Amino acid sequence: MNEHQKFIEEAIKLARENVPSGKGGPFGALVVKNGEIVGRGVNQVTSNNDPTAHAEIMAIRDACQTLGSFQLKDCIIYASCEPCPMCLGAIYWARPKMIVFAAENTDAAKAGFDDSFIYKEICLPASQRTISSVNVKPDDFFSPFQTWTKSERKTPY
Amino acid sequence: MNEHQKFIEEAIKLARENVPSGKGGPFGALVVKNGEIVGRGVNQVTSNNDPTAHAEIMAIRDACQTLGSFQLKDCIIYASCEPCPMCLGAIYWARPKMIVFAAENTDAAKAGFDDSFIYKEICLPASQRTISSVNVKPDDFFSPFQTWTKSERKTPY
Repeated sequence: MNEHQKFIEEAIKLARENVPSGKGGPFGALVVKNGEIVGRGVNQVTSNNDPTAHAEIMAIRDACQTLGSFQLKDCIIYASCEPCPMCLGAIYWARPKMIVFAAENTDAAKAGFDDSFIYKEICLPASQRTISSVNVKPDDFFSPFQTWTKSERKTPY
Repeated sequence: MNEHQKFIEEAIKLARENVPSGKGGPFGALVVKNGEIVGRGVNQVTSNNDPTAHAEIMAIRDACQTLGSFQLKDCIIYASCEPCPMCLGAIYWARPKMIVFAAENTDAAKAGFDDSFIYKEICLPASQRTISSVNVKPDDFFSPFQTWTKSERKTPY
């Protein structure tokens, strides 16, 4: 069994075992660096009352604590299922080198977990999305960025 | 001053004050339900070592704790800046009724916070994205979903 297979099996096992645990949906993810697991996550949306608690998000947060970094340089994310747009966005911010996933979005959809609607919405211009988005721009709308630019205390990211 | 302006000013204030606090980038967000603030969030990426700790994600998580729910029914999200794809994905999962934002993505880009690359990437087919994505499908890849379908303990979401 090659390394990808070993870790993807582990992610699938996390996903499967998450159902009887009652924590949330059937999803698991791992973060691996240099052949070692540095973060684990399972879906905890319903048990944590947290719609952002998808497996990949939890695994990224866990790995970042382990590594003491807000970046996942040289890491691989293994996910039991293809990431949703939120998780894919998180993956881009975390900057691992690769994503390995098992079930495809279309497989998840067959089990009632369909994120194709959200992919479509995110790729539409804001004016055409179903959640209405209103731009309200007071005079000081740029002041946070001005404060940031002038600040000597900032950590760029 | 109308209600949208009052709350967007508050989100901008959170964003501005977050810079000298040293917590993270110049971003703030609120969740409002029936005219009351039920959640607040600021960017804490660098101080928490958490690439997912954007203001909107933090505000959604905070509001869900306040409301004891993983959904933000009838809520409005006020953000000092137009949401990035990760946060927009989180907003879709949380299902508020509206987003109100101040700075546009193009304003943020002028201050060095450019998410247009991530929007582009998410809307590409996986095979064309810069973070490579590999599908590894062992025989039991669908087993988490089978376990979910058969489970009597699940909370659908």
